[in-house]
Amino acid sequence: MGGIPAVSDLIRVSEIFGPTIQGEGALIGQPTVFVRTGGCDYRCSWCDSLHAVDAEHRHGWAPMSPEAVMAEVARCAGERPIMVTLSGGNPAIQPLGPLIAAGHARGYRFAMETQGSVARDWFGDLDMLVLSPKPPSSGMEVDWAAFDACLAAGQGAETVLKIVVFDAADYDWAREVAGRYPDLPLYLQPGNHTPPPPADDSAAVDHEGIDARMRWLVGRVVADGWYRATVLPQLHVTLWGNRRGV
Amino acid sequence: MGGIPAVSDLIRVSEIFGPTIQGEGALIGQPTVFVRTGGCDYRCSWCDSLHAVDAEHRHGWAPMSPEAVMAEVARCAGERPIMVTLSGGNPAIQPLGPLIAAGHARGYRFAMETQGSVARDWFGDLDMLVLSPKPPSSGMEVDWAAFDACLAAGQGAETVLKIVVFDAADYDWAREVAGRYPDLPLYLQPGNHTPPPPADDSAAVDHEGIDARMRWLVGRVVADGWYRATVLPQLHVTLWGNRRGV
Repeated sequence: MGGIPAVSDLIRVSEIFGPTIQGEGALIGQPTVFVRTGGCDYRCSWCDSLHAVDAEHRHGWAPMSPEAVMAEVARCAGERPIMVTLSGGNPAIQPLGPLIAAGHARGYRFAMETQGSVARDWFGDLDMLVLSPKPPSSGMEVDWAAFDACLAAGQGAETVLKIVVFDAADYDWAREVAGRYPDLPLYLQPGNHTPPPPADDSAAVDHEGIDARMRWLVGRVVADGWYRATVLPQLHVTLWGNRRGV
Repeated sequence: MGGIPAVSDLIRVSEIFGPTIQGEGALIGQPTVFVRTGGCDYRCSWCDSLHAVDAEHRHGWAPMSPEAVMAEVARCAGERPIMVTLSGGNPAIQPLGPLIAAGHARGYRFAMETQGSVARDWFGDLDMLVLSPKPPSSGMEVDWAAFDACLAAGQGAETVLKIVVFDAADYDWAREVAGRYPDLPLYLQPGNHTPPPPADDSAAVDHEGIDARMRWLVGRVVADGWYRATVLPQLHVTLWGNRRGV
């Protein structure tokens, strides 16, 4: 307080944008401002946010104090309290507790999505914690002890499970994972197999292919009588393709 | 109970189909079986379900007992309890209380959407009541006393407000209406200006025009800082066009 913040208090920010609507998951359609942090402990094969993941884009990640992030969020939102979506990269590797506290004091709410690889004690301060373990097609391997630690840390936050499904193997895996967490609300999402190269967000999206995957996923879910699952597309991809900042 | 049901107990059913996902509103993405009833006290200019509204299609509406409807719903769902969506036409003009009771006894849940023109004492037995007052572009005029009676009858059901917006006049009207009901969760939905003719569900949909209306609506909502509103498209139109039964 007063003076230069310690480096450990700074948040590495890839982008802050909005308001727009949340395009996916439990809060789909809700107005939100996004805070996308830079850096990730994963490197999923189909990552759609490589500009916030690959270390070579690190020069674009600004170290910002929680106060500076909150000021920019409030500016975007016209100083009206809104849902803030913390995304990445993996936002869990950033020190976000003070930002959440500062936002709550001003009436803002916070939802965060993370793969569940790193647990933090401030998860419980979130309004919504979206745990999104990565399926086999990602090329990543889930550390379930770490995942369960995230779940435990999130006590106090509304917690939901979101699984991206690219193919039949992912689908079978999602069935198994969801079975382990019978009490969590469950969201399934077809993947975007045409994610943008990190340097070119104007790259074309295969809308028809994405819609076909969505129809396939709905078909599988209803054929299996898996009525617990909510199946949702990425609306922002339908509406804006791979374009950033919307 | 033993013998032929009285005509007044019969439900006029236009179609029963599913499971598919709910394509719009608060339950978007959730697996559901639809029961679409025949007949409506409104005739909206842009109605997308004229086959369940226009009296000339009445020959396709089957009078069914609650037991017969429930049996068909259960058959569709593979005998697994699911969310049942009661739609129309205006389902409120049908005797749906006994169907809801029969379904609840078997673990099924019920959501109903109605314009709010006719109140019934069984509204409170629903799991979700979606009140969708029709905006000026519909050509209809809302009877607010009737609407408020619907809201009162729905005590006990989770109640939400859904407003379809076709143009700027509809948007202004939605702002005003939402302001009257500050405690109801609020959903906005761009309209399909290319609804199917009742006899031809293969008629083309203007996907690009619908997406443009969605972008426009999101833009208005965020420009006005109207963060209470959730803005959602009709997913089934994106995925299946005007096709019925999905």
